[in-house]
Amino acid sequence: MTLRDEIPAIELEAFLRQALREDLGFGDLTTRVLFGEHRRVKGFFLAKEDLVLAGLDLIEMTCRLLDPVCQVNSPWQDGARVPNGESIAEVACDAQALLTGERVILNLLQHLSGIATLTVRYVEAVRGTHARILDTRKTTPGLRKLEKYAVRVGGGYNHRFGLSDGILIKDNHLVLMGSIKEAIDRARKHAPPLMKIEVEARTLHDVQDALDAKADVIMLDNMDLPTIQQAVEFIGKRARVEVSGRVTLDRVRAIAETGVDYISVGSLTHSAKAVDISFEILP
Amino acid sequence: MTLRDEIPAIELEAFLRQALREDLGFGDLTTRVLFGEHRRVKGFFLAKEDLVLAGLDLIEMTCRLLDPVCQVNSPWQDGARVPNGESIAEVACDAQALLTGERVILNLLQHLSGIATLTVRYVEAVRGTHARILDTRKTTPGLRKLEKYAVRVGGGYNHRFGLSDGILIKDNHLVLMGSIKEAIDRARKHAPPLMKIEVEARTLHDVQDALDAKADVIMLDNMDLPTIQQAVEFIGKRARVEVSGRVTLDRVRAIAETGVDYISVGSLTHSAKAVDISFEILP
Amino acid sequence: MTLRDEIPAIELEAFLRQALREDLGFGDLTTRVLFGEHRRVKGFFLAKEDLVLAGLDLIEMTCRLLDPVCQVNSPWQDGARVPNGESIAEVACDAQALLTGERVILNLLQHLSGIATLTVRYVEAVRGTHARILDTRKTTPGLRKLEKYAVRVGGGYNHRFGLSDGILIKDNHLVLMGSIKEAIDRARKHAPPLMKIEVEARTLHDVQDALDAKADVIMLDNMDLPTIQQAVEFIGKRARVEVSGRVTLDRVRAIAETGVDYISVGSLTHSAKAVDISFEILP
Amino acid sequence: MTLRDEIPAIELEAFLRQALREDLGFGDLTTRVLFGEHRRVKGFFLAKEDLVLAGLDLIEMTCRLLDPVCQVNSPWQDGARVPNGESIAEVACDAQALLTGERVILNLLQHLSGIATLTVRYVEAVRGTHARILDTRKTTPGLRKLEKYAVRVGGGYNHRFGLSDGILIKDNHLVLMGSIKEAIDRARKHAPPLMKIEVEARTLHDVQDALDAKADVIMLDNMDLPTIQQAVEFIGKRARVEVSGRVTLDRVRAIAETGVDYISVGSLTHSAKAVDISFEILP
Amino acid sequence: MTLRDEIPAIELEAFLRQALREDLGFGDLTTRVLFGEHRRVKGFFLAKEDLVLAGLDLIEMTCRLLDPVCQVNSPWQDGARVPNGESIAEVACDAQALLTGERVILNLLQHLSGIATLTVRYVEAVRGTHARILDTRKTTPGLRKLEKYAVRVGGGYNHRFGLSDGILIKDNHLVLMGSIKEAIDRARKHAPPLMKIEVEARTLHDVQDALDAKADVIMLDNMDLPTIQQAVEFIGKRARVEVSGRVTLDRVRAIAETGVDYISVGSLTHSAKAVDISFEILP
Amino acid sequence: MTLRDEIPAIELEAFLRQALREDLGFGDLTTRVLFGEHRRVKGFFLAKEDLVLAGLDLIEMTCRLLDPVCQVNSPWQDGARVPNGESIAEVACDAQALLTGERVILNLLQHLSGIATLTVRYVEAVRGTHARILDTRKTTPGLRKLEKYAVRVGGGYNHRFGLSDGILIKDNHLVLMGSIKEAIDRARKHAPPLMKIEVEARTLHDVQDALDAKADVIMLDNMDLPTIQQAVEFIGKRARVEVSGRVTLDRVRAIAETGVDYISVGSLTHSAKAVDISFEILP
Repeated sequence: MTLRDEIPAIELEAFLRQALREDLGFGDLTTRVLFGEHRRVKGFFLAKEDLVLAGLDLIEMTCRLLDPVCQVNSPWQDGARVPNGESIAEVACDAQALLTGERVILNLLQHLSGIATLTVRYVEAVRGTHARILDTRKTTPGLRKLEKYAVRVGGGYNHRFGLSDGILIKDNHLVLMGSIKEAIDRARKHAPPLMKIEVEARTLHDVQDALDAKADVIMLDNMDLPTIQQAVEFIGKRARVEVSGRVTLDRVRAIAETGVDYISVGSLTHSAKAVDISFEILP
Repeated sequence: MTLRDEIPAIELEAFLRQALREDLGFGDLTTRVLFGEHRRVKGFFLAKEDLVLAGLDLIEMTCRLLDPVCQVNSPWQDGARVPNGESIAEVACDAQALLTGERVILNLLQHLSGIATLTVRYVEAVRGTHARILDTRKTTPGLRKLEKYAVRVGGGYNHRFGLSDGILIKDNHLVLMGSIKEAIDRARKHAPPLMKIEVEARTLHDVQDALDAKADVIMLDNMDLPTIQQAVEFIGKRARVEVSGRVTLDRVRAIAETGVDYISVGSLTHSAKAVDISFEILP
Repeated sequence: MTLRDEIPAIELEAFLRQALREDLGFGDLTTRVLFGEHRRVKGFFLAKEDLVLAGLDLIEMTCRLLDPVCQVNSPWQDGARVPNGESIAEVACDAQALLTGERVILNLLQHLSGIATLTVRYVEAVRGTHARILDTRKTTPGLRKLEKYAVRVGGGYNHRFGLSDGILIKDNHLVLMGSIKEAIDRARKHAPPLMKIEVEARTLHDVQDALDAKADVIMLDNMDLPTIQQAVEFIGKRARVEVSGRVTLDRVRAIAETGVDYISVGSLTHSAKAVDISFEILP
Repeated sequence: MTLRDEIPAIELEAFLRQALREDLGFGDLTTRVLFGEHRRVKGFFLAKEDLVLAGLDLIEMTCRLLDPVCQVNSPWQDGARVPNGESIAEVACDAQALLTGERVILNLLQHLSGIATLTVRYVEAVRGTHARILDTRKTTPGLRKLEKYAVRVGGGYNHRFGLSDGILIKDNHLVLMGSIKEAIDRARKHAPPLMKIEVEARTLHDVQDALDAKADVIMLDNMDLPTIQQAVEFIGKRARVEVSGRVTLDRVRAIAETGVDYISVGSLTHSAKAVDISFEILP
Repeated sequence: MTLRDEIPAIELEAFLRQALREDLGFGDLTTRVLFGEHRRVKGFFLAKEDLVLAGLDLIEMTCRLLDPVCQVNSPWQDGARVPNGESIAEVACDAQALLTGERVILNLLQHLSGIATLTVRYVEAVRGTHARILDTRKTTPGLRKLEKYAVRVGGGYNHRFGLSDGILIKDNHLVLMGSIKEAIDRARKHAPPLMKIEVEARTLHDVQDALDAKADVIMLDNMDLPTIQQAVEFIGKRARVEVSGRVTLDRVRAIAETGVDYISVGSLTHSAKAVDISFEILP
Repeated sequence: MTLRDEIPAIELEAFLRQALREDLGFGDLTTRVLFGEHRRVKGFFLAKEDLVLAGLDLIEMTCRLLDPVCQVNSPWQDGARVPNGESIAEVACDAQALLTGERVILNLLQHLSGIATLTVRYVEAVRGTHARILDTRKTTPGLRKLEKYAVRVGGGYNHRFGLSDGILIKDNHLVLMGSIKEAIDRARKHAPPLMKIEVEARTLHDVQDALDAKADVIMLDNMDLPTIQQAVEFIGKRARVEVSGRVTLDRVRAIAETGVDYISVGSLTHSAKAVDISFEILP
């Protein structure tokens, strides 16, 4: 899997231009006062902890915006497990371009690889069960596509990308609608042909209502393990089941073993630690 | 401290518009299929853990973009410690506007409050010492001003906002320049009148060179505690001293007690966990 | 149904600003050379043929961009059948603002009402059958949300808004995949939880393959009426059925009577004639 | 005539990027779930009815935005009459790029060729007379330059591109000005050196006033044929004459034979049917 | 004449937002470190030399972007001659907003008033003659509409706003076309109905060719006074005459007295000195 | 020094695209009506007075946006003194691209070279003294980076690029703060680590206060020569000294000889005359 295959270059470049502008402000002052001449140098990005790589293409794309003839080589692909101490990629490039672009590249690479690395841990924790790890819309504004890509790199699956690619009736909708039945009926009446309907259930009673109204997917929200187990058994094959709410690495295996279809994990995108990567110019 | 005082509304609104568009995609499908009519409802944002609030103004600004007559009330201000279970703010607003804007607000509020909450812990850890906690340029692309604001809310100080508001000669610059002396001399020659010069030092020998070249600030990079102590004593009042590199909550007090001026902490912005906040519509 | 309920004002205003700029170029020369002074005038938009109204809110939104205190009144709502000779809306506004904004308003109102008017004819043609009239992605670049709104105003339903809100395996995908079965299997494996899968079928044999692979929706592409009838009977309740390809007003009723679920009509958006509306300033 | 000669590539590419983004939304889901690998394929655009081609360059420009090494070959040029069943252009390109870009290309090519095809019919209808077929400002917001290019491709001429490249005093201006004479006098006083002045006339009396005030061009608005004939004879060589309002293919020849200089036809751009073009990937 | 009457607010605000962002960079650091609290203050813009005012509306528009309830009062209008030492406008506004917006306002007000002040001198120099003072396309990129407005404020007239609102055949076109006659013939054949044709003439021979080809306007380029006189007499009423090239205040009256229609002056926009205006906050 | 070394190409191209769009409006009408075919031609930019060149790269960058295979050759570099009558650069390019881009190139090249030419005169006037010539924030909105580059080309130095890269406490801040001491103390307390603090002084008393509060730089505002001399002597090495306010070429040497560190000159950017450059296409 590569970033360029999944997100059109025209979007990535627009995003990177904006990121560079944010960091540049009025321009790279340090580089300007230090260097009068251009020269080509080599450098490499170094993994400073074990990590799952995500966002490799960003190195070349960012460098090329600053130096169109920049060369980047890497033995890895996104999804690779790069051990601490290994070089992620080597670049041969104009020195000023590297010094100017370095921080933007690192900020993104560390963040996305952090998400992929965390996702892998969840995916491995449920290995052998039927459950899929899903992301959520709890992403950083402006980075949703990138963060959801990193989840896929880590072996997770994407839930909705936004408000327009799925019907998910949540607690706040239900407060306003009165009943699960009425909500699902209305949604089905206006739903586009290719959209399933998911509804949040807080109790087994809600689950019953959702099944009666023929929800396609039922989200068990913040239930404890025994209730989840009961719900899964009660639902049977009549709907898909998603578990959501405060899922942790400690707890995820037990949830998966109840037989649910999906487990969504907000912390994949909103609380993954950045992994440690540095950039070193060769003398 | 309020966000509106620190970042012009014209910038915040442009950012929020982009964030809403990212989440909306082709539009809020669930809300559209469920609700035919507009109606005003009340709801509140609820702290689900103890947190330091940052970004309160974003609630009103986002809601107003979707419903210009939306009302938001809060007993808190940014910087307040909001206990678990307390309401952060109450809103009276068009129901569709709330359902549409909720996720963008929560994503930002949880992220910024997460940064402020973490920053407070660092600031408290060094209380009583001379040291200031600084952020870095290790921020999320697109959110730098907001994240650096959250650091200030938490009692931290901002280092550079980007490449143009400070001269910081880092290791990669030095690889290309040959010597610390030459780098500082050249920087001073071209530096604008209001810019100090900071240089990275990896050894006590580097510190000596930096002092000889009259650096204004010396960054001790990844040094162990005894070396930091030696460096601080050696430097005396001749330059300001910053410590950088893998600073943790466990270690930060000891570093501060060596007498350094600044301790910069990348994880404030690149690895702060989101705090837990929910939004509840009232029946 | 009103435009403002369905598309956020922040998007509509950005679109209208761009439309005004396109028409203004270097500025409204005629108005500038003729009028030195501002004055308030009244005017009205006049239906010059029977039409189904779509886009009423655009009058006020456009005028307000040019004169923030402009007043617009209308006895109609989107979806109303306005007879030839009736006033659609009255405006009281700065004269220059009206003269400058008139063309943009008319171009949009005539186009969207044209789509709604045509859609109503299709919807009425299938009245009493089970079939829903769907739009397609054959829209005018830049106007998709508006055109799809006009289809809803006319009583039609929206198919996909774009490439991201549905899985629709078309002929060109199948050419590359080899078999319908392989395509659907792969799609199901990677599909997000809330997405159904639709596949194009050109023959009854394709329909059989699609059913075997458990497609959620089967699109009968360019089939003649007897074949559609056979397909519908063969499929039974096992999948939803969409008919697509050269659907005309003459033929749509017969198609609907075969019992299909959806009939998609590209010409609703790519070939609807503009209805005739004029704008008259009162002396 | 080629699009690239007439509209700078920097504008066309910005427009196409926006069109692709509109269709992509969160990304091309179908293509992503179906294809893991990139591969080069061939395909062709097929005329499914007789048409006059307009917008050929858009095929290559759109494909190149998605696959910079895409190859496009065509035996045709804009303005060519392509018969039903002929290939318009062949492409050799990355499969994903084609599947992703296909709809945007078709939507534009069908729309612009539809305009060119209709324009040719009007131009041929007046062949041998003195009259030129003009377009109007009744265009689709966002597409004016493209639509006006398609009119030229079809042998028509462009009237104003917007409010800034001509002085055209219309009925609504006259309502506010009082008299044709006063309006033209004022316009002449402030008109830039290279601008002629056109005025709308609804009666022969208006024509007289316009001539007295030395209008450069007189627009006969919604007049019947005998009145047009009278006006043309009365005006002689003293001004250019444009006919406007509800011009149809049935009526245009008779109008032209009265000796008018220009006949403007709004339906060229606001009501042209899309021509039928498909895209086929080769196995 | 006011700016708001001549350039739509939506354009001016977009321009001012960009100007503020350019100056703000990462934010107004000085104001932020100095002031914790907001407070309302009064201040005034002071003419520090005699000047012709242009751009007054920019004060209020800029302030309102930073403080929506800012109040601005002025006894003047654009075009007024404000003597040295007079207050141009008084503002009552949030202190931070004023400190942040001051420089952008002054930069524009000084520049536009500089252009208006210089234009008035040219206009007065030709008073009583038939000649009009024209501007050119020699403007500052990004500011053309504003600069051309300032020329009108000073009593000058606008030539073309850009490449699309006039046909002006210049020397470089003629090099490529071969002859003036061929160029004008071709231009007339394709010219839109409302466009006149102007051609550059370097010699009396060129003037003869231009007249033969029935140019509407003839531009005498860089001719000396006696040649201009000869050309004017030779042309008579057969075409309008523009003089262009190194026109100075010393020379402009003599040129005007030859009887030419237009004198275009590039230095109005590319070399006008800024007038001196300061902003003073009241204690 | 070249522009491309100092400002990232991604920024320059965005700026040039906007400049071209401003001039193009609806398109280059003259070129379109005259030329049906593309052909390659040669031309050159000609210095029509002695000038210091600034902005050479803009020729190639602009041409390439319109014709990607355009060739530009020049024997000069930015900073070169090009005598009247010399060719600045030769271009081999598509004829339409040159005719379309010519004005934008000339407008920028004349403006930036005008600034560099004026700056050189100031720099030469203070040659041999200790003083550096500084620019200000009195720049043309939208062109700050380019204008400040031109100042560097001419041998001047840049003061702040905007409000975020320096703390400069001006008169209006002091009005609100009460005392110089309080202002500097507060600024120092919140200042980022790499920022010096400058304060404006109007009297020798202010200078004393600034020294007491340990300002890094003191700006002597609008003082007469003897007072400047006194201030410089009084300050000694305790702070850097900047002179500001109505500095002219006549007066600058005398100011420099007082021993000040910096002399800032607003007119470098707000009032430099454009130098005369033309573009000639070869037959």
